[in-house]
Amino acid sequence: MTITSPGEVVAGASWAELQSPLYWDDGAVVMLDQRLLPGQEVWRRYRDDAEVAAAIRDMVIRGAPAIGCAAAMGLAAGARQMPDEPAAFERAFARACSGMAESRPTAVNLFWAIDRQKAVFARALAGAGGVQAARAALEREALAIWREDVDFCRAIGRFGAELVKDGAHVLTHCNAGALATGGYGTALGVVRGAVEAGKRIAVYADETRPYLQGARLTAWELSREGIDVTLICDNMAGALMAKGEISCVVVGADRVAHNGDAANKIGTYSLAVLARHHEIPFYVAAPRSTIDRAIETGADIPIEQRAAREVTHVGETAIAPEGIKVAYPAFDVTPAALIDAFICEVGVARPPSRAAIDALFEDA
Amino acid sequence: MTITSPGEVVAGASWAELQSPLYWDDGAVVMLDQRLLPGQEVWRRYRDDAEVAAAIRDMVIRGAPAIGCAAAMGLAAGARQMPDEPAAFERAFARACSGMAESRPTAVNLFWAIDRQKAVFARALAGAGGVQAARAALEREALAIWREDVDFCRAIGRFGAELVKDGAHVLTHCNAGALATGGYGTALGVVRGAVEAGKRIAVYADETRPYLQGARLTAWELSREGIDVTLICDNMAGALMAKGEISCVVVGADRVAHNGDAANKIGTYSLAVLARHHEIPFYVAAPRSTIDRAIETGADIPIEQRAAREVTHVGETAIAPEGIKVAYPAFDVTPAALIDAFICEVGVARPPSRAAIDALFEDA
Repeated sequence: MTITSPGEVVAGASWAELQSPLYWDDGAVVMLDQRLLPGQEVWRRYRDDAEVAAAIRDMVIRGAPAIGCAAAMGLAAGARQMPDEPAAFERAFARACSGMAESRPTAVNLFWAIDRQKAVFARALAGAGGVQAARAALEREALAIWREDVDFCRAIGRFGAELVKDGAHVLTHCNAGALATGGYGTALGVVRGAVEAGKRIAVYADETRPYLQGARLTAWELSREGIDVTLICDNMAGALMAKGEISCVVVGADRVAHNGDAANKIGTYSLAVLARHHEIPFYVAAPRSTIDRAIETGADIPIEQRAAREVTHVGETAIAPEGIKVAYPAFDVTPAALIDAFICEVGVARPPSRAAIDALFEDA
Repeated sequence: MTITSPGEVVAGASWAELQSPLYWDDGAVVMLDQRLLPGQEVWRRYRDDAEVAAAIRDMVIRGAPAIGCAAAMGLAAGARQMPDEPAAFERAFARACSGMAESRPTAVNLFWAIDRQKAVFARALAGAGGVQAARAALEREALAIWREDVDFCRAIGRFGAELVKDGAHVLTHCNAGALATGGYGTALGVVRGAVEAGKRIAVYADETRPYLQGARLTAWELSREGIDVTLICDNMAGALMAKGEISCVVVGADRVAHNGDAANKIGTYSLAVLARHHEIPFYVAAPRSTIDRAIETGADIPIEQRAAREVTHVGETAIAPEGIKVAYPAFDVTPAALIDAFICEVGVARPPSRAAIDALFEDA
């Protein structure tokens, strides 16, 4: 057996072909290293839950739905390495789930994916097949979560496309694209859905400081696909709205509370206030797995605080005095009252409310 | 005579001692190279109007009042090199004024300073002293503009301090500090005025993409002075306001129209909308030389468009795909209706309006 370091580079994988930030490769999870975009397209192999959890923490993969897919695959990969003895297997799996849950705090899809794998695991282990059946079931479930996520994004795109007019200028924040999901994207799924419906769409992409997901990922993803995209700094959105340059705002979400309040990348809330001031529709697009009905309002959503260095440095370049005090909440919460519609795979809550959110789960 | 390149490095000058981004040194203008902050404190010598105009264009010095001071000094320095024959001197001076006026389009203080020097020049040349008297008058006027600017900033600080409560958290955008003026600052003059009045003030500094004047300059200037400053990304302002973390917003201005509409660094308008939504006072601090009563509303203020590379690169690091389309207006206009008070050296227009602006000029 060859010992390889975590995140061994994989040759031959290609975004142009896959249109997904990850895939399952014979018991391992291969992920596009999004930290290196847009400069380099590097794919890496992660062989178990601990390696995948580290990759999520280190932002190799990001975006709430994509994190869910990666976590599910990571647990399936890890299960292959766990002891064959059932009790030890069960303990190792529980530990793996705990470790995975600690990778990022805000996106609820992570916990949702872990819970799905826990349920599958319990069912399989309770059955006749034992450990081997549990391993197979975890793998099947991970692939199902991934496939479903792409299907859900396409459905989001179809529902969302109806809200976007021909000729629209769509402003988006961060990256809620194919890179942030199993593929196709949520907010960018709406853009793709509108484009596929024959509408002429121009996108304004907020660069999204400090991690620059808009500049590095959204601009990359859309321009490679030939979708008209213009990069702006986050602080330009208001001025563009005042000039009538923005038709609507579409963003993703990392967690949506029962009342429709939505946590998303820092800066989303400012856009929602600006959109309301300019009477521009503000839409949140995300799969139902992003909704956390256990949380009544956005006030209870945990907000990740990240390290100052992401603000004070760009690459190796220092852009601020050494040792300067920094505030860096990675997410903010947009109250439901500022959201005109929540778009998910089963339809649109317009406007979002406790009742409208519950209605999205009537089939569930 | 030793031929030196434009912007020859000057040893021995020190911000800690000068607290001004420029000074007059025996016929030349010495300026702190603000492009290199916060990493390096480098002072450079510029020997005539063309060198100073290039330095303004290249952002060695920036900030509307500081640009005015530099332009006035640059014309005085240039006049020393112009021909002694009166008609040729006059032609050379007119050319110098035109060249200076082309350096940056939005800040009106540039044109105001050039006009002051033109008037001084005409008066002196009409008198008995001729060319030599004109040279001396231009130098005196440049020094007067510089000294006045510092005095005006201190007056702005005293008036503004009354609007800022003890314990206030002041949000500011870009750098309207000592670095942006002859010294002391406009928006940061208000902060200094409040601190000198014994108030405890904490500043939140927007990093101010893309040129990062907040991260590079405001954070540097305030932290060196021991004023409590926390750096944030521009897109965090709304979330901080929603949490009750911001007491008021104080910004500078590059040009104020007759009705009180204020052009300032891109992103200012978004802050004004956010402040209004959160019922937080929004103040503009600038000397009267920033007011352009020839322009009725902000719609007529020319907005500089700058090069995409300032958005797509930080230092040498590319942060966006090559060739991506970029929108980059360097300034935006905040309508008077969103400004709670305009603070200048003779008092406060609260709220700003045509009549309130005119009242500020009653002594003039």
